[in-house]
Amino acid sequence: MLLHHRFFCPHSRFVRLVLAERGVEPDLAEARPWERRDDFLRLNPEGTTPVLEAAESLAISGAEGVAFWLDDTDQAPPDRRLMPEALTQRVEVRRLMRWFHGKFFDEVSGPFVEEKIDKRFMPSEAGGGAPNTSILRAARNNIRYHLAYLGWLAARNDWLAGPQMSYADLAAAAHLSVVDYLGEVPWNDDAAAREWYARVKSRPSFRALLADRVVGMQPSGTYADLDF
Amino acid sequence: MLLHHRFFCPHSRFVRLVLAERGVEPDLAEARPWERRDDFLRLNPEGTTPVLEAAESLAISGAEGVAFWLDDTDQAPPDRRLMPEALTQRVEVRRLMRWFHGKFFDEVSGPFVEEKIDKRFMPSEAGGGAPNTSILRAARNNIRYHLAYLGWLAARNDWLAGPQMSYADLAAAAHLSVVDYLGEVPWNDDAAAREWYARVKSRPSFRALLADRVVGMQPSGTYADLDF
Repeated sequence: MLLHHRFFCPHSRFVRLVLAERGVEPDLAEARPWERRDDFLRLNPEGTTPVLEAAESLAISGAEGVAFWLDDTDQAPPDRRLMPEALTQRVEVRRLMRWFHGKFFDEVSGPFVEEKIDKRFMPSEAGGGAPNTSILRAARNNIRYHLAYLGWLAARNDWLAGPQMSYADLAAAAHLSVVDYLGEVPWNDDAAAREWYARVKSRPSFRALLADRVVGMQPSGTYADLDF
Repeated sequence: MLLHHRFFCPHSRFVRLVLAERGVEPDLAEARPWERRDDFLRLNPEGTTPVLEAAESLAISGAEGVAFWLDDTDQAPPDRRLMPEALTQRVEVRRLMRWFHGKFFDEVSGPFVEEKIDKRFMPSEAGGGAPNTSILRAARNNIRYHLAYLGWLAARNDWLAGPQMSYADLAAAAHLSVVDYLGEVPWNDDAAAREWYARVKSRPSFRALLADRVVGMQPSGTYADLDF
């Protein structure tokens, strides 16, 4: 399999985590969606990452696209599935995936990555340049209520959506991980969220992500520290 | 079942279509997300429509949330399912749902509904007022390439995602229907898109939608005309 991704795109990170949990190691190709290359647009007309070329003429785009496709074919025993079997839990997992891949991305991880990372590498005609400080200020404000909500979810159950780890945990962790790289997660605000994140981060599937680096930008002190 | 919706929210319309195709008639409650009422936020912390109260303590939010929940429990014979059985077709249905519920909404139906309908009913402190003409201009520009893509999809197969009608068709039709009410679909641009829409619109599941009216705003001449 070949995964077209960006190292600090949270949706791409989610796919890397999910595949690693399933023991699949895809080849990686770095995409630059702002270049709008024809060969990439043929794979995914939306022009966004991630895109997984899973087989000849089967390109699956988007974090949820890959997750649901894997669920359609998952052979894992019920207690190890990332999408649980019980109907109400499935509803909750999908709700939280949407929360993190949609709302958290729009309000927190998307703005942080675009302003602090992507704009360093984009040419100015594609929107590159210095970060917009008012966008950063809004994202710093937004992460506080998101972290409180995450802590509330983590205190309610062993894992975010219920008694077993699911796509919901990997979605939340993928988005948090890029914000954590940038040192923008106020971990001291919420002990339950922090304890939950330490557990997810300690999984072998997380290892490759913790080795990623942005050229010219060191990660925060907590980023790769499993006992932060 | 009780559906919290807005009559001209395309995601809500999708859920009404899907339920009607399955012979389910939910009670309807009109929501005003900008009021951010506590009882509504308890059902869906995102504060968005639609939300389907399917059973005691089972509230399902979002167009895709409802669609995938229904698919989990669908008893229809394979050739009448709105989510096909074949893996590659399932991938394509999900890709197109995301295209219409995400990209088309962001670029076309969302701006049109907000500027031309919602802003008439929102108090000015919540953003109500006159439509922003530059946003409308962008949406008018965007719909042209979306209609061409839709026509290309419609010409490729009997239905958008393959040989049978699916969630993809209902998603596209739900979003187009609100833009059509506003007279903003350049139907003469694409015969294949127009022929496909006439077929979807003629289904009994569409009837209730064609009777909806915005107070003080007549629908376009094509809206309720099955032979437009």
